[in-house]
Amino acid sequence: MRRFHPIIPAGGSGTRLWPLSRANRPKFLLPLPGPDSMIQATVRRLLPLSRIDDLLIVAGPAHAIAIADQIPELPERQIIVEPMPRGSGPAIGLGTAIAARRDPDALIGSFAADHVVNNIPAFHAAIQAGIAAADAGYLVTIGIQPSYAETGYGYIRAGRPIRPGDEQVFEVAEFKEKPDRDTATRYLQSGGYLWNASMFLWRADVLLAELRRLIPDLADALDEIAAAWDTPRGEETLLRVWPQIRDVTIDHGIMEHSDRVAVVPADIGWADLGDWHGFGAVVADLDGGSVVRNCEAIVKDSNNVVIFGNERLIAVLGLDNVIVVDTDDAVLVCERTRAQDVRQFVEALRQRGSTDLI
Amino acid sequence: MRRFHPIIPAGGSGTRLWPLSRANRPKFLLPLPGPDSMIQATVRRLLPLSRIDDLLIVAGPAHAIAIADQIPELPERQIIVEPMPRGSGPAIGLGTAIAARRDPDALIGSFAADHVVNNIPAFHAAIQAGIAAADAGYLVTIGIQPSYAETGYGYIRAGRPIRPGDEQVFEVAEFKEKPDRDTATRYLQSGGYLWNASMFLWRADVLLAELRRLIPDLADALDEIAAAWDTPRGEETLLRVWPQIRDVTIDHGIMEHSDRVAVVPADIGWADLGDWHGFGAVVADLDGGSVVRNCEAIVKDSNNVVIFGNERLIAVLGLDNVIVVDTDDAVLVCERTRAQDVRQFVEALRQRGSTDLI
Repeated sequence: MRRFHPIIPAGGSGTRLWPLSRANRPKFLLPLPGPDSMIQATVRRLLPLSRIDDLLIVAGPAHAIAIADQIPELPERQIIVEPMPRGSGPAIGLGTAIAARRDPDALIGSFAADHVVNNIPAFHAAIQAGIAAADAGYLVTIGIQPSYAETGYGYIRAGRPIRPGDEQVFEVAEFKEKPDRDTATRYLQSGGYLWNASMFLWRADVLLAELRRLIPDLADALDEIAAAWDTPRGEETLLRVWPQIRDVTIDHGIMEHSDRVAVVPADIGWADLGDWHGFGAVVADLDGGSVVRNCEAIVKDSNNVVIFGNERLIAVLGLDNVIVVDTDDAVLVCERTRAQDVRQFVEALRQRGSTDLI
Repeated sequence: MRRFHPIIPAGGSGTRLWPLSRANRPKFLLPLPGPDSMIQATVRRLLPLSRIDDLLIVAGPAHAIAIADQIPELPERQIIVEPMPRGSGPAIGLGTAIAARRDPDALIGSFAADHVVNNIPAFHAAIQAGIAAADAGYLVTIGIQPSYAETGYGYIRAGRPIRPGDEQVFEVAEFKEKPDRDTATRYLQSGGYLWNASMFLWRADVLLAELRRLIPDLADALDEIAAAWDTPRGEETLLRVWPQIRDVTIDHGIMEHSDRVAVVPADIGWADLGDWHGFGAVVADLDGGSVVRNCEAIVKDSNNVVIFGNERLIAVLGLDNVIVVDTDDAVLVCERTRAQDVRQFVEALRQRGSTDLI
């Protein structure tokens, strides 16, 4: 039985969750939907499948200490600090290469640090089905059962079962880019299309072989770093090699070109929580309509209000579809359909040099 | 030439300006529209007409110290502390009675502590015209030229000039209660109707004579207090007599029954600032549309937004007609047409026992 090594690439700033998210307090460190932070919840739901000593987090230097504080049970060597961000693909590749050095039989999973999974038993069942397929040599991706015609995600078209009669794991017929509204609606109606959440499972040796075949320069770089890692030359090697690595996603670089890709359709209560509107939708599902977190609130004659507070009382009167986020130094009040444009505030603050607020 | 003694009854809690207004921080102590507090602005616009030593403020025990702090130039004996609120009528009567003891020739003016006057020269001209009429024995009220069909105020119908050819001061033909919408519209269109802002001018001896004729029990009580005031028995007499006084307004108790009433029509940029919508209207007039006070704000794709802040940045996106008020311990977000219902929050907080928030 192979040991399971989850890798959590913890990058991204989450500017659409401003003012709660900041450069030094990215989305995955925030208590969303709460009370745990997103990375704490991610780790917690993986621990029934893995030893904590086998779980790797790849993070930037600005966040490593906060991660260690939030997950004190994680051994220090399980946090790999990138000197600079190179995207999730190299981070996942580096984690895989290091895990393979430590455990050549490693079976790897990659999980975003800032996704919501509400159905934990279904999640565990999907991962276990995926682990079985990965053990058999497949590069496995978890495909999320779509619940509406989302245009912001890529899709996966499932093909035949990888084993006749096994309705858990399927060949990937095709990766689809983000569709337009009509296409997304057609995907939803026709069935067989899944959201690509970039959640992966593979044997370390299989992934590294595909990396060497498809992205040899990245394979060389990761080999060099992993060979030096856990030695006194590790840090120096990382600092020298990492800056030359180019950002390439696992989807574009590997999955779309490999012929050993499989997908596990999963209905796991997944959400991306990309902005405050998404936060509201996730918490409304959990709380049954009332969306108030982290504060006291009085909401009168108002519908579909999303409040994330900060000790102060929040009082809302006569407003529908409004988001209120209160923090120590900034308050956001936003119409829900405009939630994705909250990043404009971050840009405006950057331009005026208000670095303490971003 | 009589000395002019302005009296400022400083009562009322202003629950509709919550969360900025609180029980211990009523409307007249707040920097609205700012930067001075309303009572500071009230005193400042009266000082060209009066010596500071002749200006009287009648206030409750919870606010006397804050008033003294805000108006340090006011002699301590010019703040009269009511043991308990009895409404503006007895407060103005008491001020008049005490001023008359100190200066039997006193000419009195009464001015709310929490009204906005934007046209100071027009205000001074109206008061001076009113003082001349008061000196001649009239009970004078300042009638505000209405700018729209307000249903929340009482109206005064002006009659003939008190002196033929003098178009500054008129007899009062009639006091009108708050009208319905149609009636208010008719008042506005017909002209000759003025808002009753309860701003009065009179000779102390004239008012006290009318008090004795029309409300003899109040006249007795005020006589007894004023006779003891400025003596060692003052405080004891006030504490004994004041609780038995009944609340009666000058309008209902005196002006509507006297036959020596005159009105000065005044176009002085007056506003009641009763709620946050009114605050927004006043400041929008001043600032030309952008209504942000006391904080930094970024407002995107939003119209008619009113912001009163508290150091934190306020960011508003995609919302029209919204009020945001930020304080140390509470944040209000309210649709502008609902501003008058903000008092509901105060009531809700009282019911839940959150006395620190009201």
